[in-house]
Amino acid sequence: MLGYISTRAKCRGRVSQGAVILGASEVGENTYIDVNTIIGYPSRDKLLLGKPSSLNQLDELSAGSRVGSNCIVRSGCVIYEDVELDDGVELGHGVLMRRGSRVARGARVGSGSQLDGEVYIGEEANVQSMVYLPHLTRVGKRVFIGPYTCVTNDRYPPSRKLVSVEIGDEAVIGAGVIILAGVRIGSGAVIAAGSIVVRDVAPEQLVMGAPARTVSDREKFEEKKRAYESG
Amino acid sequence: MLGYISTRAKCRGRVSQGAVILGASEVGENTYIDVNTIIGYPSRDKLLLGKPSSLNQLDELSAGSRVGSNCIVRSGCVIYEDVELDDGVELGHGVLMRRGSRVARGARVGSGSQLDGEVYIGEEANVQSMVYLPHLTRVGKRVFIGPYTCVTNDRYPPSRKLVSVEIGDEAVIGAGVIILAGVRIGSGAVIAAGSIVVRDVAPEQLVMGAPARTVSDREKFEEKKRAYESG
Amino acid sequence: MLGYISTRAKCRGRVSQGAVILGASEVGENTYIDVNTIIGYPSRDKLLLGKPSSLNQLDELSAGSRVGSNCIVRSGCVIYEDVELDDGVELGHGVLMRRGSRVARGARVGSGSQLDGEVYIGEEANVQSMVYLPHLTRVGKRVFIGPYTCVTNDRYPPSRKLVSVEIGDEAVIGAGVIILAGVRIGSGAVIAAGSIVVRDVAPEQLVMGAPARTVSDREKFEEKKRAYESG
Repeated sequence: MLGYISTRAKCRGRVSQGAVILGASEVGENTYIDVNTIIGYPSRDKLLLGKPSSLNQLDELSAGSRVGSNCIVRSGCVIYEDVELDDGVELGHGVLMRRGSRVARGARVGSGSQLDGEVYIGEEANVQSMVYLPHLTRVGKRVFIGPYTCVTNDRYPPSRKLVSVEIGDEAVIGAGVIILAGVRIGSGAVIAAGSIVVRDVAPEQLVMGAPARTVSDREKFEEKKRAYESG
Repeated sequence: MLGYISTRAKCRGRVSQGAVILGASEVGENTYIDVNTIIGYPSRDKLLLGKPSSLNQLDELSAGSRVGSNCIVRSGCVIYEDVELDDGVELGHGVLMRRGSRVARGARVGSGSQLDGEVYIGEEANVQSMVYLPHLTRVGKRVFIGPYTCVTNDRYPPSRKLVSVEIGDEAVIGAGVIILAGVRIGSGAVIAAGSIVVRDVAPEQLVMGAPARTVSDREKFEEKKRAYESG
Repeated sequence: MLGYISTRAKCRGRVSQGAVILGASEVGENTYIDVNTIIGYPSRDKLLLGKPSSLNQLDELSAGSRVGSNCIVRSGCVIYEDVELDDGVELGHGVLMRRGSRVARGARVGSGSQLDGEVYIGEEANVQSMVYLPHLTRVGKRVFIGPYTCVTNDRYPPSRKLVSVEIGDEAVIGAGVIILAGVRIGSGAVIAAGSIVVRDVAPEQLVMGAPARTVSDREKFEEKKRAYESG
């Protein structure tokens, strides 16, 4: 619980006891780094080559990460080196973010979710708990992703060719959705809970099922939503 | 690993090194609080307003939680303030319970599961690993919930209207089930693994599929179970 | 963060600060044990009977575990007593392995995955993030298991009869697959993402859907894979 802050780190925020901040990491003003977090964890290659045996040596291996101002990084989060959290990002407990991930201003990522490689999360996106986003996933602005949604990046695993999933701005992805590698989800599209998405979804379409097929559109979804909210 | 115990806390149980107990939390007799746990974590509003920068300040913000006697809270659990664990509750590793959750006597919650808001778990319920129960979920007595089951609370996410899922006493929910917001599952009902439950399930019915439909009933399930157990 | 190393433990590898190593555990040469890990965690029976209240007492209860040489055990992992990790095993963050699990040489287990009982993972198997493998699961050599796949071990839960799932060598299991208790998956079989596998799968078959049915075979999968990789 004593924690560790690298001499190379620049912390202007509030860092609790028990946090580990490695490398030339930067923590912005009014940001809260909770107990039992790690910021700037070294990538796999460095871990294998560098053979660390202490936090000092782990620190030396780390290039650090950048956490903006007004962020919250809750307990149990592990943020790799070369990650950028823009201002106002909020993380739940136990979030894992691998090297190269970028989370834009005001986005939230829920407890237990993993950004497993170079993942981009757009402004004010709302990623719920236990969501898995692998290397190359791109999530647009103000996208909502329900809990237990799992994106993939390999059509014929395990292969050497990883392909991205791109989720357009304002899309809504329900809980427990599986999205296959290479799929593009258009802006404003809606994916019903439990769907398996195997091909591209056009903008503003509502798809459902396994495999997911168009059954309605965003306009009707919003109509039903208004009735539901006022009901 | 030094841990922290609030001066306001009343601990009659066994608290390991590395546990963090905040606010006026109570820990009952013969209860074991493991390493790397947090009891009484402050709610989001307090974290945003209170701007803590240390365990002392986190402690000051916390209203504490109540853990009964003869409980086990394993490593990595994060229990928010205003949570009640009744006597004999047992948690796996890394369980997250948000503010307002209540777990009744003798219930178990498996590793990595999340009670993400005001969730009620009935007596002797058995919630397996990696189960997600959002705000407002109510789970009856002696209910079984298999791993990876995901309950939702918003029919048209993200909306401002959250609705509860209620699971009746003695119901059996298989692994990897998705239950949509607002659904009532009758007492004694059985939900087959991998089902997507989009509408209410009558008591004692066995449902299966996506969307889940009645295919059998509890009596036949119990008959098959007896044959299976003796086979 | 001070960690704890049992006087009974034999550590030839590199153990970071904040690691907890209990009982007569062995850590091989050139193995890295990360911060916030626990090796040799006592089983449930011992925890209930032994009533530990400190790391010293937890240590006394533990029979220890064996971690081979050239392994990586990343932060947040909890390895129970009587677990064996063979040489060259690599674990992600927050992996949970219960008593009696065995992981063979060169296998990898991804972040957040659980081996929840006596589970066997074969040589060079590749288990991705957030995979759930319950008591009695056997995974063959060089098997690939995608993220969020959930294996079960009870056909009529909760019963007193647990049955194994066996996954043959070289099988490929996609993301978000559910495999029911008692199922045998033949060597070289391929299970498409999101499938629910309710009966045995013959070797070299490709199955898909809910319930999963044969739709192709491994040879055609490999043909498509070659085209995909060169495309």
